[in-house]
Amino acid sequence: MKLSLTQENLSHALGMVGRVVSNRSSLPVLSNVLLNADANRLRLAATNLELGINCWVGCKVDRAGAITVPARLFTELVSSLPSGTIDLTLNDTNLSLKTPHYQSQINGISADEFPLIPEIKTEPILTLPATVFRDAVQQVVVAASLDEARPVLAGVHLYIQDDKLIIVATDSYRLAEKKLPLGGVKTDGKLSIIVPARTMQELVRIIGDNSEAELNMYLSDNQIMFEVDTIELTSRLIEGQFPNYAQIIPSSTQTTVAIDTGEFGRITKVANLFARENAGSIRIEVKGEGQLNITSTASQVGENTSSADCEVEGDDNEVALNAKYLSEALGVVRSPKVSFAISGKLNPCVIKPLGKDEPSEYLHIIMPLRT
Amino acid sequence: MKLSLTQENLSHALGMVGRVVSNRSSLPVLSNVLLNADANRLRLAATNLELGINCWVGCKVDRAGAITVPARLFTELVSSLPSGTIDLTLNDTNLSLKTPHYQSQINGISADEFPLIPEIKTEPILTLPATVFRDAVQQVVVAASLDEARPVLAGVHLYIQDDKLIIVATDSYRLAEKKLPLGGVKTDGKLSIIVPARTMQELVRIIGDNSEAELNMYLSDNQIMFEVDTIELTSRLIEGQFPNYAQIIPSSTQTTVAIDTGEFGRITKVANLFARENAGSIRIEVKGEGQLNITSTASQVGENTSSADCEVEGDDNEVALNAKYLSEALGVVRSPKVSFAISGKLNPCVIKPLGKDEPSEYLHIIMPLRT
Repeated sequence: MKLSLTQENLSHALGMVGRVVSNRSSLPVLSNVLLNADANRLRLAATNLELGINCWVGCKVDRAGAITVPARLFTELVSSLPSGTIDLTLNDTNLSLKTPHYQSQINGISADEFPLIPEIKTEPILTLPATVFRDAVQQVVVAASLDEARPVLAGVHLYIQDDKLIIVATDSYRLAEKKLPLGGVKTDGKLSIIVPARTMQELVRIIGDNSEAELNMYLSDNQIMFEVDTIELTSRLIEGQFPNYAQIIPSSTQTTVAIDTGEFGRITKVANLFARENAGSIRIEVKGEGQLNITSTASQVGENTSSADCEVEGDDNEVALNAKYLSEALGVVRSPKVSFAISGKLNPCVIKPLGKDEPSEYLHIIMPLRT
Repeated sequence: MKLSLTQENLSHALGMVGRVVSNRSSLPVLSNVLLNADANRLRLAATNLELGINCWVGCKVDRAGAITVPARLFTELVSSLPSGTIDLTLNDTNLSLKTPHYQSQINGISADEFPLIPEIKTEPILTLPATVFRDAVQQVVVAASLDEARPVLAGVHLYIQDDKLIIVATDSYRLAEKKLPLGGVKTDGKLSIIVPARTMQELVRIIGDNSEAELNMYLSDNQIMFEVDTIELTSRLIEGQFPNYAQIIPSSTQTTVAIDTGEFGRITKVANLFARENAGSIRIEVKGEGQLNITSTASQVGENTSSADCEVEGDDNEVALNAKYLSEALGVVRSPKVSFAISGKLNPCVIKPLGKDEPSEYLHIIMPLRT
């Protein structure tokens, strides 16, 4: 292998693939990044066996070849170099990196030992503007479980219904659902998969602010591949049945409040300061005259009541919620005003964006705390 | 106690005193901040028994009084509130905080239990522009020891000689010294103290970008007080004899290099990537024709040579240094070009700023590593 490319391109590509590398693996090659040069491109790849990523960079290739090198060292090295051309030359398993003022020898591990990232050679099942999908995923993935005890809850469920792509996650204490109208997008209409939340977070990061790009999704039996520009993210799917969540979405609610999202977030945050020793439990009280109060009590420390003005439809009402869940929901709702519906102490609360920009294609449900 | 003040002023003052609070103390009152209102000012105070801080804030006092409240909770609460007026009212040991939309009760601990921060009622021994002192301390404190095994090395030595304030620190592997010309400043010329490095770092933070302020220093037998605007930082002094360091400052050097500070820093950083498993050891080689090379080797991983152009006075020379110490020295030297002097493998290296802005009032010495 012998090739030249710019520091900027190599550093950017390493930043894309580097996060997938597992640093604590018992298999040393998994801490490495694969460099594989063909006619005029360099492929960088990393995998943790669940999630694999390929990223292609244009370069001038004098001699094809492949090697794996320690990802962290190589990434830090390249990112510390000044901009300009970098020459990479492979001798046996020793990679030499040269710039006018820097010269490094890095001992690699043969590319033969690098695990195969499954290739999916089919037509894309779905093509969407990448940032539209990114925004939708960000609104949903927050509700996925961090606990792998029930694998389906640590995933994001994607399915198609009524010409809409539905993206949903729940950790059983809360649920977030986003519906993306598919309009002219071609699909076979039969999609129903669960993608690990970790994969979705990685995808959000990869899309970044790349506002022009298209996102292509490819599917095989137990793998999904997301393609954005010259990057491919391949992940296993989670097997199992996603909970039938339609039944927990309330068909009607008792009291609905229209409230400023930022103000609601701020009083929740303040209430949470006093709720820490109480597992984040805060009490929300809606007064018919147009006020929402949040109270929290810490036995040792003291107590707090915060309030905000709002428009109320329905009677006085109250419920206890987890402050963190409410904060996170308000953090992703993205509209300046939000609708917040309470139906007594035992029923779930429903949060929806308000305003013209966001029709009711997003909803967030939080289960009440028993007090 | 009953008073009103602005959220901005209270939040700023809490930010100043809050960092001194010790959160893991066995004495609960040390986790608290003292609020003490007299005629028209509120005093905030915190102490960890070694270091104490007082900060005064102007406010409208209806009733004087004092209480201590949990510092972390109170600081987070106030910083989360919207700007505007805050009313504080004390009932027994219960502090009530009120704004139009927020209302909190915080259980405090009686102010009587708060340790006395020693008062020093003397004339200032020294008065300087605060930012001049801050810049000098930042260049020196990096060389102080983090290890309390030899207490004097965990301090910064201040003394006056030849109408200059000399600020010096050493952890025995490196030494930094800054001389501040005192010009017209009045002093009794007999200062010689050792201030804990932690105190100096706190002082740097307190001065911040407060470019207008004067810094007053007050001294008692075993305490020093720094006064900046309405803030007083009081610290114990370290007892003992600071090492007689004059003997380790080389009177002459063999080879001196003039080199771009940023470039020198960058090649040191890259070399350090390969020096990690070798305790940060890098080899610096100066070539008479005008090049400085840094090489480092990691047995498992590979090796690196980085180089930079420079002007050389003297013969070829080389030395092994700790990359972290060199990086930190280059990080505080503050001139675009730096002079770097080597005197063989066994003698210390000397780093000095170059250029008109910084005359030779700063020097940084790094001891070589035996290889």
